[in-house]
Amino acid sequence: MERPRHQGMAKNTYMRWRLPLTCLLWEVAMIILFGVFVRFGPEADAHWEEEKQEMNVTSDMENDFYFRYPSFQDVHVMIFVGFGFLMMFLKRYGFGAVGFNFLLAAFGIQWALLMQGWFHSFKTGKILIGVENLINADFCVGSVCVAFGAILGKTSPIQLLIMTLFQVTLFAVNEYILLNLLHVKDAGGSMTIHTFGAYFGLTVTRILYRPNLEQSKDKQGSVYHSDLFAMIGTLYLWLYWPSFNSAVSEHGDAQHRAAINTYCSLAACVLTTMAFSSMLQKKGKLDMVHIQNATLAGGVAVGTSAEMMLTPYGSLIVGFICGIVSTVGYVYLTPVLESRLHIQDTCGIHNLHGMPGLIGGIVGAITAAAATEDVYGKEGFIKAFDFTGSYKTRTPSVQGGFQAAGIVVSLVMALAGGALVGGILKLPIWGDPADETCFEDDIYWEV
Amino acid sequence: MERPRHQGMAKNTYMRWRLPLTCLLWEVAMIILFGVFVRFGPEADAHWEEEKQEMNVTSDMENDFYFRYPSFQDVHVMIFVGFGFLMMFLKRYGFGAVGFNFLLAAFGIQWALLMQGWFHSFKTGKILIGVENLINADFCVGSVCVAFGAILGKTSPIQLLIMTLFQVTLFAVNEYILLNLLHVKDAGGSMTIHTFGAYFGLTVTRILYRPNLEQSKDKQGSVYHSDLFAMIGTLYLWLYWPSFNSAVSEHGDAQHRAAINTYCSLAACVLTTMAFSSMLQKKGKLDMVHIQNATLAGGVAVGTSAEMMLTPYGSLIVGFICGIVSTVGYVYLTPVLESRLHIQDTCGIHNLHGMPGLIGGIVGAITAAAATEDVYGKEGFIKAFDFTGSYKTRTPSVQGGFQAAGIVVSLVMALAGGALVGGILKLPIWGDPADETCFEDDIYWEV
Amino acid sequence: MERPRHQGMAKNTYMRWRLPLTCLLWEVAMIILFGVFVRFGPEADAHWEEEKQEMNVTSDMENDFYFRYPSFQDVHVMIFVGFGFLMMFLKRYGFGAVGFNFLLAAFGIQWALLMQGWFHSFKTGKILIGVENLINADFCVGSVCVAFGAILGKTSPIQLLIMTLFQVTLFAVNEYILLNLLHVKDAGGSMTIHTFGAYFGLTVTRILYRPNLEQSKDKQGSVYHSDLFAMIGTLYLWLYWPSFNSAVSEHGDAQHRAAINTYCSLAACVLTTMAFSSMLQKKGKLDMVHIQNATLAGGVAVGTSAEMMLTPYGSLIVGFICGIVSTVGYVYLTPVLESRLHIQDTCGIHNLHGMPGLIGGIVGAITAAAATEDVYGKEGFIKAFDFTGSYKTRTPSVQGGFQAAGIVVSLVMALAGGALVGGILKLPIWGDPADETCFEDDIYWEV
Repeated sequence: MERPRHQGMAKNTYMRWRLPLTCLLWEVAMIILFGVFVRFGPEADAHWEEEKQEMNVTSDMENDFYFRYPSFQDVHVMIFVGFGFLMMFLKRYGFGAVGFNFLLAAFGIQWALLMQGWFHSFKTGKILIGVENLINADFCVGSVCVAFGAILGKTSPIQLLIMTLFQVTLFAVNEYILLNLLHVKDAGGSMTIHTFGAYFGLTVTRILYRPNLEQSKDKQGSVYHSDLFAMIGTLYLWLYWPSFNSAVSEHGDAQHRAAINTYCSLAACVLTTMAFSSMLQKKGKLDMVHIQNATLAGGVAVGTSAEMMLTPYGSLIVGFICGIVSTVGYVYLTPVLESRLHIQDTCGIHNLHGMPGLIGGIVGAITAAAATEDVYGKEGFIKAFDFTGSYKTRTPSVQGGFQAAGIVVSLVMALAGGALVGGILKLPIWGDPADETCFEDDIYWEV
Repeated sequence: MERPRHQGMAKNTYMRWRLPLTCLLWEVAMIILFGVFVRFGPEADAHWEEEKQEMNVTSDMENDFYFRYPSFQDVHVMIFVGFGFLMMFLKRYGFGAVGFNFLLAAFGIQWALLMQGWFHSFKTGKILIGVENLINADFCVGSVCVAFGAILGKTSPIQLLIMTLFQVTLFAVNEYILLNLLHVKDAGGSMTIHTFGAYFGLTVTRILYRPNLEQSKDKQGSVYHSDLFAMIGTLYLWLYWPSFNSAVSEHGDAQHRAAINTYCSLAACVLTTMAFSSMLQKKGKLDMVHIQNATLAGGVAVGTSAEMMLTPYGSLIVGFICGIVSTVGYVYLTPVLESRLHIQDTCGIHNLHGMPGLIGGIVGAITAAAATEDVYGKEGFIKAFDFTGSYKTRTPSVQGGFQAAGIVVSLVMALAGGALVGGILKLPIWGDPADETCFEDDIYWEV
Repeated sequence: MERPRHQGMAKNTYMRWRLPLTCLLWEVAMIILFGVFVRFGPEADAHWEEEKQEMNVTSDMENDFYFRYPSFQDVHVMIFVGFGFLMMFLKRYGFGAVGFNFLLAAFGIQWALLMQGWFHSFKTGKILIGVENLINADFCVGSVCVAFGAILGKTSPIQLLIMTLFQVTLFAVNEYILLNLLHVKDAGGSMTIHTFGAYFGLTVTRILYRPNLEQSKDKQGSVYHSDLFAMIGTLYLWLYWPSFNSAVSEHGDAQHRAAINTYCSLAACVLTTMAFSSMLQKKGKLDMVHIQNATLAGGVAVGTSAEMMLTPYGSLIVGFICGIVSTVGYVYLTPVLESRLHIQDTCGIHNLHGMPGLIGGIVGAITAAAATEDVYGKEGFIKAFDFTGSYKTRTPSVQGGFQAAGIVVSLVMALAGGALVGGILKLPIWGDPADETCFEDDIYWEV
């Protein structure tokens, strides 16, 4: 099993003490922090029985669990199966794709429950959690999975854990700025999850640039079966994206609408992806890389606006455009990013999350700016944008401006945070693989 | 990658302009038609906030979204993962199975939203959509996936798109005749989806008959791994079929009952499939083809009656019979259909959807004819068959007669429609593969 | 395809009449018993329309279907996809893993509906079923799937059916003793499903001990692709386990809480599994066997306590410990069990279900014993442990004692039942494979 290493490039990828210690210490820290801070929210606490009576709630159905649990499970599948299997396209990195994704996500959701909890669910010294917190933790980790796609195959599990720790932290800060300070809508996370995650990951991979990565070029492709496994990931992401974009929207029409808009955008996206995949190749054949990835861009690009009155045809237009942008990106932009900007983007996240995320932020800003009481109804208008309290007088066009500011903030946070974390990950102590052993499971796995 | 073509049979399978133009033009047409016609239904529109108050709806839970969304997601998985992976059993057609299914279904659901919308959700010039429309669109596309099974590996993606366009149209017409004119019950689509889809597809494949298909016989089998991938499709179809048959039933007991009946029928079906799979082979070994397909026949065969008071033991009987019929069909009927009737049925849809669909229609007619107020309760009886308005005086036996008429109408529509579409697909301009390159991904895909 | 058999060990594995007859006769028996006993429960019966009015139920949403159906579907996926694919890790036993699991589970759920129905849903001579019965039937079969893991690859399908018949029967008796006689809480089945299932299966495999099993040692390992298929099983079990542990809990806060506790326990478990997997190997590499299995121990170990006020940090602690216990078990205990105790445990169920199941029972007993009105609220306290009727005066510490008794009863039932069933399966008439053809699909399957 032990294979000879190229002399000159030998790196110490021995994980035996570094990985276990990191995992165990961090998990102990989680237990302590959860012990100090995390408790059940009112709807998950046994006291709910009494609270129901006080609040005149007549049906157990009013528990938020029943509004959100099915969506939560779909999102949960997307993070662990969707991302995990999508990244399995590499011929010899299946264990790493699904296994490291499993590891970082399992740690990330715990840390996200804390970080997001301190910002959003902190009451009288405790973080009170319920099903919505679980969804938001999965969302937060989703942005880490996105960034993982850029550095897939080139990092050690410890580096991934460190990136997760920092990225979740920065995600929570950025999310707080957007949702609470700018009072921006972003239910499906075009800005907070995709734009932030993608440009964060791209910055990290830029800093970790490997000039001699062509030494493992033979392993960077797919084989027939790895492409089929990847399609499992693609399809679950595609199918459950309506749940993703609607999972934390307001009860009722907003959740309903977000699911429909996303469904429409994704459907249109498949057709333009297929069209451009065939058109951009001399032989006119379809390329599985595009089918696996660009078909999902439509979900990313309505992440902000899906819960708004984007309308079904508006969603089709967004999906139409993003299938094209994303496929063109895979064909023309990815090679240029690597050769000119030294950005080695293993999964092409710039095409699937970066550009569509930006488009999603812009579509959201426009849709918000174009909102009228006529389209939303008087009450619906206030509810949709939460124009209450200190935001009572905010107008749609001002809201649009803040939405646009949210894109900029997310970008800045991503670039600055990615630079910081990339610098940390560049330290030669984390056990990353040599150039010629990238994209290969048997460095970190018993094969 | 480019392989030499047999001189005599050379066909132009170059897709570079035909496929992209079809996809782009059709998607533009969808956008225009959606722009003119499709709007959010009341429960997905932001005005719902006001409507709730007018209609005295006290809980957001009353939004149809919460009654149907979990079932919708299960159905969605069945169409894209279930059918897509089930058809992956061919050793070298995995990309085509899952990829073309993805393409035709993504287009089909959009066209189905329009076609079904004009017939069923058209109000004051607009099609108002909600989660039930999404389910029905998936259902409609399900019948195309069924037909795809008959011609799997033998057509170009353009042919599949053309078939989808016509089949969805005819499906909507047939559905309208059955549900609205004949006032027939068919919640799980034994008639509208399976009977129609199967005989439509069989007619198409008959017209596209390839006398020299044995030239690609070596590629028409499975390998070990392709059979395991196919089992993913099988299991998701089998597991979610209770959701399929209950997805558009009336709220409450009808949905509940439909799920239970389907669960029972499917369980029984597995045992008789295993029994006959072993019994019909000299060596007594089990055949994965049967396990992958015939185990599902029980779901097809209660598609009409699942929401009726079929009772659990009635469901077991139906499943028992259909496991046998379907397995026997695979062993004895499929070869005869090809040799005698020149019907080349790649996936054996006649055994999985054709015969069980017919049985399902008949079981539905009998169950309806046998209904009594005693069994359903006075109110339940009226609700179950919607004996209101102009149908107030219809008796169970008359209903049974109309149900039977529904089978005949579906068959006629399937045969006539299939003949028409088969004729169109036979034109030598759609880029279908030569006989010796059927069942092979590298004609249309970069491999 | 027919391969020569080693002379001395030739066994008659010919299934042609034995398997079909068993399947058909048993299914006929199911139909008769369902015909005599099983009817729709009130919420699935068409009379519900009238019953609603009598009981002043104003919304169809109050139908138990909507409280439990999404969880049911997740559990359903776990049993058929989760277990079926997890057991696919063997390089040449994929058909057997997923196919036999399919067979035994499809039979088992029918028999479980009857057995559990007689004990729990029997009213005026009929078993009245609804969605909760479907979940419980899946649970019951889950314990058979666990036991199947111990004997995977070493038995004929007939032996599996016989084991299912007996194990479901004994499961129902044990469950009745625990839930009804001891009035014990065990919503996620740490005791009834995992402890019982594991020690039952271990006893069976002990009795079926094969001293010369090393003859098929080459087939007992995994290959790259079989490990990836197994990860599908792992992830779906891991992701849906919160649904599993909450599926039959009381409506409202209990379901909500059970999902959160399970989510936390599982997350922690992943980190300690990774840590010990790396730590216990000289080369410090991760082992897919651990990732596939030990990561799930956290779900097993909160099976009893998840619906109690275990608290998120309590769940993290349980998951932390069980990831370690389970991984250490795979590395050190499994080899010893085989060499010293002659227990050949193919999937290592002792590490995934046995020890974590016992821990789960103990954690449940402690959590119950530690319950106070302060923590649960006055009403919540009574509701959580159902301290009503003849149990009105039971104290938490007494409850803890009964919980502990439940562990002992489950163990005794498992060992006694396993010994009985193992003895029956040892009879030389069931067509089990010879030692050198274990773990090989082509004995029972057309390959």
